[in-house]
Amino acid sequence: MNIADRSFILRGEIAYSENENEIKTVSGGYLVCEDGICRGVYESIPEKYAALPVYNYAKQLIVPGMTDLHTHAPQYSFRGIGMDAELLEWLNTYTFPEESLYSDIEYARKAYNYFAEDLRRSFTTRAVVFATIHNEATIELMNMLENTGVVTYVGKVNMDRNGGVNLEEKSAEDSIKATVEWLDAIEGKYENTYPILTPRFIPSCSDELMAEIGKLAESRNLRIQSHLSENKSEIAWAKELVPKATSYANAYELFNNMGTPIRPTIMAHCVYSDEEEIDILKKHGAFIAHCADSNMNLTSGIAPVRKFLDAGLNVGLATDVAAGSSMNMLKTMLITLQASKMYYRLVDTDVKQLTFEEVFFLATLGGGRYFGNVGTFKDGYEFDAIIIDDSKMFSARDMSIRERIERMCYNDADVIIMDKFVKGRQVYGKI
Amino acid sequence: MNIADRSFILRGEIAYSENENEIKTVSGGYLVCEDGICRGVYESIPEKYAALPVYNYAKQLIVPGMTDLHTHAPQYSFRGIGMDAELLEWLNTYTFPEESLYSDIEYARKAYNYFAEDLRRSFTTRAVVFATIHNEATIELMNMLENTGVVTYVGKVNMDRNGGVNLEEKSAEDSIKATVEWLDAIEGKYENTYPILTPRFIPSCSDELMAEIGKLAESRNLRIQSHLSENKSEIAWAKELVPKATSYANAYELFNNMGTPIRPTIMAHCVYSDEEEIDILKKHGAFIAHCADSNMNLTSGIAPVRKFLDAGLNVGLATDVAAGSSMNMLKTMLITLQASKMYYRLVDTDVKQLTFEEVFFLATLGGGRYFGNVGTFKDGYEFDAIIIDDSKMFSARDMSIRERIERMCYNDADVIIMDKFVKGRQVYGKI
Repeated sequence: MNIADRSFILRGEIAYSENENEIKTVSGGYLVCEDGICRGVYESIPEKYAALPVYNYAKQLIVPGMTDLHTHAPQYSFRGIGMDAELLEWLNTYTFPEESLYSDIEYARKAYNYFAEDLRRSFTTRAVVFATIHNEATIELMNMLENTGVVTYVGKVNMDRNGGVNLEEKSAEDSIKATVEWLDAIEGKYENTYPILTPRFIPSCSDELMAEIGKLAESRNLRIQSHLSENKSEIAWAKELVPKATSYANAYELFNNMGTPIRPTIMAHCVYSDEEEIDILKKHGAFIAHCADSNMNLTSGIAPVRKFLDAGLNVGLATDVAAGSSMNMLKTMLITLQASKMYYRLVDTDVKQLTFEEVFFLATLGGGRYFGNVGTFKDGYEFDAIIIDDSKMFSARDMSIRERIERMCYNDADVIIMDKFVKGRQVYGKI
Repeated sequence: MNIADRSFILRGEIAYSENENEIKTVSGGYLVCEDGICRGVYESIPEKYAALPVYNYAKQLIVPGMTDLHTHAPQYSFRGIGMDAELLEWLNTYTFPEESLYSDIEYARKAYNYFAEDLRRSFTTRAVVFATIHNEATIELMNMLENTGVVTYVGKVNMDRNGGVNLEEKSAEDSIKATVEWLDAIEGKYENTYPILTPRFIPSCSDELMAEIGKLAESRNLRIQSHLSENKSEIAWAKELVPKATSYANAYELFNNMGTPIRPTIMAHCVYSDEEEIDILKKHGAFIAHCADSNMNLTSGIAPVRKFLDAGLNVGLATDVAAGSSMNMLKTMLITLQASKMYYRLVDTDVKQLTFEEVFFLATLGGGRYFGNVGTFKDGYEFDAIIIDDSKMFSARDMSIRERIERMCYNDADVIIMDKFVKGRQVYGKI
């Protein structure tokens, strides 16, 4: 459909989460959007919204937009390649050489355009994105993402060591100077595209750089994203590099990179985060970006998401392209479920596998909370919604909405996104 | 394209395996088919084939057809549902009630038509299929599969216990009588559709039934397929049911259900197969159908495929629909790789993860060997080939064929099957 205004009612087969335990479904329900804000789901149109136009999606599914808490835009171009390697070899063999190409703005424009267009057509309505160390390319990426209508945080990457000659800033001072120039250049420029400070990870950032990033975050009220405890060799290396830290998480904390509950840091992975790290993440109100696909592809391991949830941590899902091979959040949900089942079966039967309800929650409201009131269809939430045609998946019998929601997650290739709304604005529509 | 005869040359970007260690690639190569038999891959057209028509697929990929060694046709209709359950609960809650519906030929026709049509459009050129206990529906399925051009083994299922009132044959005698009637009804009827004896698994089949199936296999020179050591509760139950067996595999062996190298049995799963079971499988020349997707979905565990390969066993890949959620062999390859990486990381670092080369081999030649000279482009092999358009996956730089083959496996949703050939006959073509 083609919906121009930001106040309307969508009718269809609606599913959404308000908590981890339940997926609410309403067949033939009415989902109200008023000035870009969700006004709830109803079985019949409330009197006060009777004047709004109604768009009838009939048997198509309507679900909240999904949040991808961690992805690397410059890696999208080589997704699905070199997947037999582990993290540090993969970074040096594939990732760093590829990212160094983004010093060439023409190359960056070509590759980022592809990322942005595919993101627009995806289940993702909110994303938190790594760019590269290059200011010009990063700004070009932000321009493109702004045009998609998807709400994003985007980080120019900081790295002043171990990037090789082609992907390393000359000093902490140079890195900070470039970061400030980048921030100044985009000040006030975007409605839906926010900067986020992005120290790559401890092996890429000197103590001095980390400390300066911590100060910059505080002085400019900016959020931070990074990587934590992904791979055993990486963890050992981080320990060598910051010997005074009691844990990898503590290394970030020492340099004030762990944020606060009102400007929460995102830490991707946390595969090997133990009780100390869980305590640190919790104290700072950090968000864990759980990257199950990536963690399996690079043979990193499986993060104990159940433990994070039990500890009351903020958790969302993430594709982590290109260590995750796809930006499709449905596929990410499937792999999150499989990873969690294998953690239970192979590592610790005291850590129960995630349910489908929990994973649907994490993909929508779990990560959505990083962006405020985002990720569900409750009254007062920003209106992010996806309309889905799953009719290609024939069934010999009728399926409930709950069954169709589970089935689509296990069969992402057979699902078509028809329309997509972010903050009440239609940003994609299939003709 | 539309290719009517069975002697021709295809030109394109060709990739295939001859062994586990290497994927051979030829850019702009010529793949020769003569009367349905592959005559090899060449960089230029050999003089002796100069008269054959050449079809130019330009930059599209050409790979061998894939073999799905284990799938359940009647479960396709509910794929991707109830995936939070483990095996025995899943069978009783979802599978057995669904399969019982196939006593209704109209229901069966509707559902099987969908399975057959999707199979025709898939990467699979050879499949080994479970039907249900119902003769009429099984014959209808075989009729439909014959029409697809895909070469299959199809089994009317035997189960005379623990299926509940709606999915149980009354006695071993009844089950065997129905099986003989089914075999007689289809005798000489098909070119590409073979019957296979299908005792569901030990919990479904009495000792008497198993023994009779063993005799029938021998007297009629038929192959057998079943399930082995998938889930810990199932294994414990099988042990109770056949107390004299020294292992689950030995229970099949005792009743002559393990086959011989010239009519090899397929055993699906083997998640918990230990050295004794490996020895038994090897002695009989059995094929292991490795079902990684299914084994993760039902929280069964991960089969140690590396150990099977090291022991010289026959191994192929399998979707195991509907415990595996998709019939897409590319997705099966991806999940096989992830499973193998997690076995290495979480269970035993002495059991090295599978390489991409090995998994590509297993999906093509590994399983293909069950059908004879099938699964590669060597001279003398039956001509099964898939033409793939991967141009939807833009890359900012050129990709090698090897890179494109890996990338397509990690991004099955972005890959389009253009044409498909089985035994030199075109069975599918995208307009």
